[in-house]
Amino acid sequence: MSERSPNNVPESRFEIICQHGSARLGRLFTAHGVFETPIFMPVGTNANVKLMRSDELKKIGAGIILSNAYHVAVRPGLEVIELHGGLHEFMAWSGGILTDSGGFQLFSLKEFRKISDDGVLFVSPYDGSKLFLTPEMSMEIQKVLGSDIVMVLDHCLPIESSYKEALDAMRRTHEWAKRCLKHGVKEQQMLFAIAQGGAFEDLRKASAQFLSQLAFDGFAIGGLSLGEPFEKTLQLTHVTVSELPWEKPRYFMGGGSPKTIIELVTLGVDMFDSVYPTRLARHGGALTSLGRLNIKSARYKKDLSPIDERCDCLVCQNYTRAYIHHLLNRGEALAGMLLTHHNLYYMFKFMEFVRKSIKEGKVEEMRKEVVKTYEERRGNCVDPSTFDVDMSCRRC
Amino acid sequence: MSERSPNNVPESRFEIICQHGSARLGRLFTAHGVFETPIFMPVGTNANVKLMRSDELKKIGAGIILSNAYHVAVRPGLEVIELHGGLHEFMAWSGGILTDSGGFQLFSLKEFRKISDDGVLFVSPYDGSKLFLTPEMSMEIQKVLGSDIVMVLDHCLPIESSYKEALDAMRRTHEWAKRCLKHGVKEQQMLFAIAQGGAFEDLRKASAQFLSQLAFDGFAIGGLSLGEPFEKTLQLTHVTVSELPWEKPRYFMGGGSPKTIIELVTLGVDMFDSVYPTRLARHGGALTSLGRLNIKSARYKKDLSPIDERCDCLVCQNYTRAYIHHLLNRGEALAGMLLTHHNLYYMFKFMEFVRKSIKEGKVEEMRKEVVKTYEERRGNCVDPSTFDVDMSCRRC
Repeated sequence: MSERSPNNVPESRFEIICQHGSARLGRLFTAHGVFETPIFMPVGTNANVKLMRSDELKKIGAGIILSNAYHVAVRPGLEVIELHGGLHEFMAWSGGILTDSGGFQLFSLKEFRKISDDGVLFVSPYDGSKLFLTPEMSMEIQKVLGSDIVMVLDHCLPIESSYKEALDAMRRTHEWAKRCLKHGVKEQQMLFAIAQGGAFEDLRKASAQFLSQLAFDGFAIGGLSLGEPFEKTLQLTHVTVSELPWEKPRYFMGGGSPKTIIELVTLGVDMFDSVYPTRLARHGGALTSLGRLNIKSARYKKDLSPIDERCDCLVCQNYTRAYIHHLLNRGEALAGMLLTHHNLYYMFKFMEFVRKSIKEGKVEEMRKEVVKTYEERRGNCVDPSTFDVDMSCRRC
Repeated sequence: MSERSPNNVPESRFEIICQHGSARLGRLFTAHGVFETPIFMPVGTNANVKLMRSDELKKIGAGIILSNAYHVAVRPGLEVIELHGGLHEFMAWSGGILTDSGGFQLFSLKEFRKISDDGVLFVSPYDGSKLFLTPEMSMEIQKVLGSDIVMVLDHCLPIESSYKEALDAMRRTHEWAKRCLKHGVKEQQMLFAIAQGGAFEDLRKASAQFLSQLAFDGFAIGGLSLGEPFEKTLQLTHVTVSELPWEKPRYFMGGGSPKTIIELVTLGVDMFDSVYPTRLARHGGALTSLGRLNIKSARYKKDLSPIDERCDCLVCQNYTRAYIHHLLNRGEALAGMLLTHHNLYYMFKFMEFVRKSIKEGKVEEMRKEVVKTYEERRGNCVDPSTFDVDMSCRRC
């Protein structure tokens, strides 16, 4: 484990407490609290983490949640949020909020938008109404939302895009990043850039190098976890992270299974978001010390044990697998509520272990264990086509 | 207010603390706690109150919940419940449980059953499997479930049935009641009879008289709240209650809107169950001191007030109408969770007021206020065709 050296002095709103290999234990100072990294951020696209009340979310250890500036600006609209005094007040969430800009919707809503160098024209699939989103406007929206961490508007591409497409999108992303930075955010907000570059190592490298020269508070790795092989995810993340400034937080967008997290922490990533644990929950999947279990499976019909023998969450203290199996079988939404509660609790505990492993210099041991746990249970998983990819539509 | 007289001595497991007019303040002694009456019992047909965790249900003041022996016996099946040691343990509920026998399913599943004097043959609409339910078997099922209050198997009819049909069903109900009583339940369980008689006053009277002579722990008024005009509900309940023994609890099955409750409390009813507050919640409806509100309505889009200014529940302390309106608008299940929480909290507070009004001899004042509150807001309600009738399908 590396000790803090003199040049580890906290810069801006992030400090690295200690490092083991490339893995870093850090602290993020936001207007809504100080949060240890590596951190997992649950996704609350429509101003709510599905099936979780905000007070419960706080109680089980959530620090920062992710929401989506584009979606929230469309519905309920900025005026409603502004009346409440911001997104925190609107959704009664006192912790941190990171908002994605809308850049991901260039990818996920690709049939409903037109991109030019100036910005993006979105046509609502609901009512045909139009929204022309520029980098400046995205900043203004996120200022109104009062997000603790603001993301630049970026041009997110399908991973199978050509070199030419990836290059163009990267250049546009860089121009937009500069315009976002120039436009600025509120004093108490942090602004993160997003590195792109498609599936091409040289572009990934160039993007990270370019953005690193600009005064952002943090850097995201965007456009990955979109269906590419996991080895490719690791390689492209590695190339990007290697070029990013050491002293700034690094955020991998849209990846958050235990395996993804531990692998990317090893590469020096500090922040993660994913719908993985919450979406898995709604489909009957549980994250456990034995790996991922599909509680819908008939094998749990008479199983009196808790979801996870080693978990002390409220759900595991009170309910059996057989009960949750029954609820799933009857289509009762309480099943999703209980599994969401458990899976998020699991993730926050998991992150505590990740941080502890960095502190104790045991990241590699933990990595091996996690990979083993999640690979061995593959036979007992929910439909792999739904869940094995670490969620491409994380924020759509 | 009547004071307790010498012959008000607690008999079996119910005592009447005081009475005002026909309204009674009582106490029900069950194996899972002592509960004041009049009581409202939320419905948990499939071994869960929809969208509510059992610990939360307890926290907001639920005492007894209703479940359904027939449905639970079909899924997950008695073996699973028995393995857990009973329904309480299965659903992690430490309060009281009343189980309906399956009699209501003679009405609600009428295309899937055949009735004879011996019992009912149910054919599962899911897989065609058959279940022949006799009064004795219904007792055995409820013994396994470990319900605090067991309901006899009865023959529940559509309210528009002919005199002949109602008479036959009543006679059968009486025979079955005797068989249930003879078969018996566990020492710690109470057994309630169900008075029937269709829409006919003389049959209602005869049914109550017949059953009153048998040693039941309580008496239910069944086969009402099935679409008949409210005046008819009141009249038939009145006729029934007048013939029931004063010292035993009286339970009106399937009615539980505030207006229904206060009217029937005035007639001397002690117990109520209904899906009304929970189903209303899932459709965007809120019970408030201003009457019933439809939070889906566009008028709440920018409304920063809580659901009910006069409510101190967790939801009203934290969330605005605008936020819940947004969640409903986006189809987020959290809306139903928040509204269910609020509506049940409202009902339990409402019942506290009902009991207080009996204690203080102000039942009539409360009745007038409730009627006024709920009638004045009619214009602002959710679709009346869905909710104005006090839920015929309360347990199906």
